[in-house]
Amino acid sequence: MATVKLLTDREVEAIPAAKAVFDDIRATRKSDFVNNFWRGLANDPPLLKRTWEDLKAVMTAEGALDPLVREMIYIAVSTANGCQYCIHSHTAAARARGMTDAQHAELLAVIGLAGKTNHLVTAMQLPVDPEFEVRT
Amino acid sequence: MATVKLLTDREVEAIPAAKAVFDDIRATRKSDFVNNFWRGLANDPPLLKRTWEDLKAVMTAEGALDPLVREMIYIAVSTANGCQYCIHSHTAAARARGMTDAQHAELLAVIGLAGKTNHLVTAMQLPVDPEFEVRT
Amino acid sequence: MATVKLLTDREVEAIPAAKAVFDDIRATRKSDFVNNFWRGLANDPPLLKRTWEDLKAVMTAEGALDPLVREMIYIAVSTANGCQYCIHSHTAAARARGMTDAQHAELLAVIGLAGKTNHLVTAMQLPVDPEFEVRT
Amino acid sequence: MATVKLLTDREVEAIPAAKAVFDDIRATRKSDFVNNFWRGLANDPPLLKRTWEDLKAVMTAEGALDPLVREMIYIAVSTANGCQYCIHSHTAAARARGMTDAQHAELLAVIGLAGKTNHLVTAMQLPVDPEFEVRT
Amino acid sequence: MATVKLLTDREVEAIPAAKAVFDDIRATRKSDFVNNFWRGLANDPPLLKRTWEDLKAVMTAEGALDPLVREMIYIAVSTANGCQYCIHSHTAAARARGMTDAQHAELLAVIGLAGKTNHLVTAMQLPVDPEFEVRT
Amino acid sequence: MATVKLLTDREVEAIPAAKAVFDDIRATRKSDFVNNFWRGLANDPPLLKRTWEDLKAVMTAEGALDPLVREMIYIAVSTANGCQYCIHSHTAAARARGMTDAQHAELLAVIGLAGKTNHLVTAMQLPVDPEFEVRT
Repeated sequence: MATVKLLTDREVEAIPAAKAVFDDIRATRKSDFVNNFWRGLANDPPLLKRTWEDLKAVMTAEGALDPLVREMIYIAVSTANGCQYCIHSHTAAARARGMTDAQHAELLAVIGLAGKTNHLVTAMQLPVDPEFEVRT
Repeated sequence: MATVKLLTDREVEAIPAAKAVFDDIRATRKSDFVNNFWRGLANDPPLLKRTWEDLKAVMTAEGALDPLVREMIYIAVSTANGCQYCIHSHTAAARARGMTDAQHAELLAVIGLAGKTNHLVTAMQLPVDPEFEVRT
Repeated sequence: MATVKLLTDREVEAIPAAKAVFDDIRATRKSDFVNNFWRGLANDPPLLKRTWEDLKAVMTAEGALDPLVREMIYIAVSTANGCQYCIHSHTAAARARGMTDAQHAELLAVIGLAGKTNHLVTAMQLPVDPEFEVRT
Repeated sequence: MATVKLLTDREVEAIPAAKAVFDDIRATRKSDFVNNFWRGLANDPPLLKRTWEDLKAVMTAEGALDPLVREMIYIAVSTANGCQYCIHSHTAAARARGMTDAQHAELLAVIGLAGKTNHLVTAMQLPVDPEFEVRT
Repeated sequence: MATVKLLTDREVEAIPAAKAVFDDIRATRKSDFVNNFWRGLANDPPLLKRTWEDLKAVMTAEGALDPLVREMIYIAVSTANGCQYCIHSHTAAARARGMTDAQHAELLAVIGLAGKTNHLVTAMQLPVDPEFEVRT
Repeated sequence: MATVKLLTDREVEAIPAAKAVFDDIRATRKSDFVNNFWRGLANDPPLLKRTWEDLKAVMTAEGALDPLVREMIYIAVSTANGCQYCIHSHTAAARARGMTDAQHAELLAVIGLAGKTNHLVTAMQLPVDPEFEVRT
């Protein structure tokens, strides 16, 4: 069970500021389904609005990275942070954007390797090689 | 200062198993530069060898993901894990593979957004929507 | 299922050092309910005693911070650490101490924002501005 | 050294979208000082703008929590995430908002205790007591 | 439900590279039981093979640390990383290698204490004492 | 620079409750050296006292685990948590207790492997095999 109430469509109807965001989620995604993340945030309409606008701008707008790549980066961060819900929801999103089994397997291999070397590096407390410093 | 000795080329010369890995690093990367990560691992030649072979297979072999995408995933994991050395070394590697400022900025935006929603989701302890379950 | 046995009241009765702590938990909290955390720690009575005394001193004694504020700080740390049980138990504790829905929503907003900026800062590897150094 | 360029005031002047945010930071904080976090984000003006607006709304607007409490929650999250820059900047911000040494000491005590019990709980893999489930 | 398919023995039979690893797992462990970790990795036979060989070398080969000590170190890392499956599987492995209740209790006490002091140290942003620097 | 004042011996002299702990640290360790961790905690004498007594009980008392093993577990947790100071101080402590280079290398190998498999497991969101459930 969540630590907040997950608002039903009927409850969201009664909060115009939340209703407007739900309408935009449905229009943007061309789907009637609104997942629990937004139903939890709907308790705080300004937070709901800022978070949705942030997500829409970062994940779906035209940009320098393919939207599927963005989803894979999201999975990588969520894995390192141990966010179960996020791993499930963004793995589903990546599949919906066309992630193949081979791409998923490779994503896991990179995540696993990074997990290993992050720990080795931290345990050794390595100084950064001057060659890696950005010069801008 | 590191918690292990960072072996110099001269010291590595004296350990054939480590020397062979250093030679392969230099040949694979077409560069004489070997960074501190490998100099620290050189204290344990079998670990050095396994780690290098893992990294070579995962990060440089032909695959389903572009090598630059793999580097960006690596940066994402390293950031969530707070591994300073790794962030520096893989940001440098991504730039060497052609990451533009616009791509880097977008990578940061996705990492930041994931950091935010990971925390919100965890604080709300949301149940996974059945729609996100993989059916295979 | 837990990785340790969760001791029942009857089992705790048989361990005087654990029984004494359970009695103090009940007396301090003015409630017969003892949650699983203490039932797990009861396998190691000295650890149980030190942990309870620590918690009693830090969370319930007179101090410079309101006890509700301390509970919200506890939720913040537990969220960043991904400790599900802790998030549930301390959210319940905060509500019992009077946390309103508006305060909870604001707590979530701060936690989410910190999650975002923590990741952005770490990815950028920013040097600390000299203005932030404490001079004491 | 950072992984991004930290823009000087002169460089920000040349980017109207970034300049507008810097002006608002200075006006809101009634100070000419703009710290490195914003100078790094200035490379991506839309991210700069969204992050500043988020931070202004969450940390400085009228709300249900005292602004000092919000800063302490920020420190708690930043500590659990190991974000050095964030710990320094928000400890400085909390002091600027009047945090006393006694309040800081108590904040540390709660953070430390939560760190301990988070680890104990996770190692024991405790099931959540039904009493902690929110009923809403 | 997992984000990948967990391959059954019948499905593994059809993938020679995965079958060979499963055979070695069974031979090495002298048990027919193969746990979900390997069934998930079997989707990517090279990752399966590298991971099993790594694990066999690190956890079961003759070495400088007792195999039970290695399992306890594994539990410690998995706890700090909040990996539930790993905590369960390696606690079971440690018990199978003879970990007593007293040893488990002590392991938990060290993990909890480290969790506490890690957080205190990070919140205080302590400089490393020169006495702790390794001189090699 | 730390976020708290690091008290000098002269300053500690003026706080009897802190002085008593420093005396016990010196007597227990048979050394005049008191590291920065205690100098930071000395700002809060009750926290200093509780933390020292906890550490003395867990790390130095007779127990079921060798004191060197406890130090290695401490390093493992500190690495996963990214606590730089703690990694340095406990690696030094482990060396002082006789940790050999071979034992250190093996510790790193286990930490690295756990880091890898923790990430793989979390990304796959594996259900715990019933065989791993403790039956007590």
